[in-house]
Amino acid sequence: MLNFSFSNKTRIHFGTQQIAQVSNEIPLDAKVLITYGGGSIKSNGVYDQVISALSEHTVFEFSGIEPNPSYETSMKAVALVKQESIDYILAVGGGSVIDASKFIAAAALFNGEPWDILSKGATVEAAIPLGAVLTLPATGSESNSGAVISKLSTKDKLPFLSAHVMPQFAVLDPSVMNSLPNRQLSNGIVDAFIHTTEQYLTYDVNGKLQDRFAEGILLTLIEEGPKLFTDEKTDDVNGNVMWSATQALNGLIGSGVPQDWATHMIGHEITATYKLDHAQTLAIVLPRMMWEMRETKQDKLLQYASRVWGINEGDTESRIKAVIEKTEQFFHSVQMKTRFSDYQLGEEVVDVIIEQLERHGMTQLGEKQLVTLQHSRNILTASL
Amino acid sequence: MLNFSFSNKTRIHFGTQQIAQVSNEIPLDAKVLITYGGGSIKSNGVYDQVISALSEHTVFEFSGIEPNPSYETSMKAVALVKQESIDYILAVGGGSVIDASKFIAAAALFNGEPWDILSKGATVEAAIPLGAVLTLPATGSESNSGAVISKLSTKDKLPFLSAHVMPQFAVLDPSVMNSLPNRQLSNGIVDAFIHTTEQYLTYDVNGKLQDRFAEGILLTLIEEGPKLFTDEKTDDVNGNVMWSATQALNGLIGSGVPQDWATHMIGHEITATYKLDHAQTLAIVLPRMMWEMRETKQDKLLQYASRVWGINEGDTESRIKAVIEKTEQFFHSVQMKTRFSDYQLGEEVVDVIIEQLERHGMTQLGEKQLVTLQHSRNILTASL
Repeated sequence: MLNFSFSNKTRIHFGTQQIAQVSNEIPLDAKVLITYGGGSIKSNGVYDQVISALSEHTVFEFSGIEPNPSYETSMKAVALVKQESIDYILAVGGGSVIDASKFIAAAALFNGEPWDILSKGATVEAAIPLGAVLTLPATGSESNSGAVISKLSTKDKLPFLSAHVMPQFAVLDPSVMNSLPNRQLSNGIVDAFIHTTEQYLTYDVNGKLQDRFAEGILLTLIEEGPKLFTDEKTDDVNGNVMWSATQALNGLIGSGVPQDWATHMIGHEITATYKLDHAQTLAIVLPRMMWEMRETKQDKLLQYASRVWGINEGDTESRIKAVIEKTEQFFHSVQMKTRFSDYQLGEEVVDVIIEQLERHGMTQLGEKQLVTLQHSRNILTASL
Repeated sequence: MLNFSFSNKTRIHFGTQQIAQVSNEIPLDAKVLITYGGGSIKSNGVYDQVISALSEHTVFEFSGIEPNPSYETSMKAVALVKQESIDYILAVGGGSVIDASKFIAAAALFNGEPWDILSKGATVEAAIPLGAVLTLPATGSESNSGAVISKLSTKDKLPFLSAHVMPQFAVLDPSVMNSLPNRQLSNGIVDAFIHTTEQYLTYDVNGKLQDRFAEGILLTLIEEGPKLFTDEKTDDVNGNVMWSATQALNGLIGSGVPQDWATHMIGHEITATYKLDHAQTLAIVLPRMMWEMRETKQDKLLQYASRVWGINEGDTESRIKAVIEKTEQFFHSVQMKTRFSDYQLGEEVVDVIIEQLERHGMTQLGEKQLVTLQHSRNILTASL
């Protein structure tokens, strides 16, 4: 196992009717900015619950945060934060709203050009405190220190990390998932699944508990995910998917083990260029990533095959082929497509994405930095 | 799944050579009290590493904290804390030292008779901040808010909980386990195992991820525990056991699911009366607890049998018998005995322990409050 330091200070309030907790979590004298997206929180009742919980607080609103949240939109919120001297941000939404809110929280107190936080890795020295009411389980952003922001003008999609933007609390009410469209449920399940594989399908460092926890998340998503599209969907099923998504990317399963993230880096370029949803890109890339890097990932691929899918027969290559097929079938079972052609994209994508990867310095990706541009090209070509 | 709130603020520094981190974690102007036990930290090098890390700090020491730490000893430390105006406590040891340090931290700022914290559940309003350098993985005390303290004069052994005594940080260096005697390794493995079963072998509330995580801890302890007594013992094996023990009782696997703790409550009385080690008492009680409460625990016992031990054949009763036998064999494989007679105790214990349970109001224990004194009597009698 590798040495690590781990902490996660986010207080989780999990369950139905927990949105009322925000009134206790946010200081009464705070000027609160509620950030959200396109307004679905108004039709599903979440907005009303939040406003009711904050009836004693001074509240401002900023809406219109888009999927793959943009720098441009975020900076409008930063102006509002400064103008109104906001001192608490409450993100109400999924990963996009929470990611944008993290960037807003950091940018509002940043000395200089905030884009440098993303493009140059400039250090975040402070941020406005924030909390989250999660409406779409997927990214884990509600209890981690990361965010990904896109610049529309340049088609850049870049991440940053700072302990200062870790949410102080997060409300996870599984019943909010009942109003989500299938496409968002598919995205959430696949995103959580591939967050887990990015921290699990690497090489073995004898981190046995981390492996068991990762496998536990994968097994839970495989068992519960497909139910979200049937009449077996209950708040318990919602809750199991939601809690899995949080645990998939709150720092726990990645502590003390190598991490990959090559699938994400390639996926980000596809989203930035072709506007596919984040999880849609991951589901295209991962199966071919597993195959392309099967030698360096062999031990973990076989462990994954055995423990998660019960595949124990056959030679190494056939077991790896079988587990990749199982993985792709699972994505299909949660209504997720796995080919560029499913989105009417053809071989033109290959050169374009390779060029973007090169431009962003993504020439050696993965847990051992072995995913060269040639590997990425092979993966993209095989994924058409 | 049940509603829950969860947070765990303890920063973990895991790995060899991590003890040096204490110098960054404790404010330089703090007057630090180092608390420890019988002096084994002086022979294994941990003491020297701590003193070296705190070379710039003002340091006091309090040693002599015993296993099953006593109120009487703790109060001597409280006097020292007050006399020297200590403002940070660094516990260097296992669960006993950390538990005592939590009580010292709370008692030093308590308004009134500190025993009331344990005997009357008096609220802890504040505590001196504390950190921990763990030398014996077992109790999870290094990153939770609980402690158990014994009063020697009355043979009481009672727990308390307070967020104020949650360690701010904990150093987990697996190499410290290389100097532990086998008896302490046995205790640690079994303690962590039974902490897990107390939160897992209850009734099913469809908390699927919590179940998977609990099973992951059990599987890791079963795979790695016995190696600690062979030449397969490495720092990775140490680390896997250590990290499992922390995760077994840091609040995570118990969030959103019922909890039992009947085995612990009975075990505490045995320790208080007969001085058996804490884990020794648990290993005596648990197998018979599983059998005695097999009807109410049936679903989870069968799930445990299947997922942890691969027992899938036979009728319900035979599978439960088989998994209890496997559990007991596992305890034996880590050099832990499972009968009163192994400690030269006979049927005289039954009435004595039942009387103690009654005196402490422990007449309805377990996740459904179904463990009556008659059940406890049956368990004790069957465990002779």
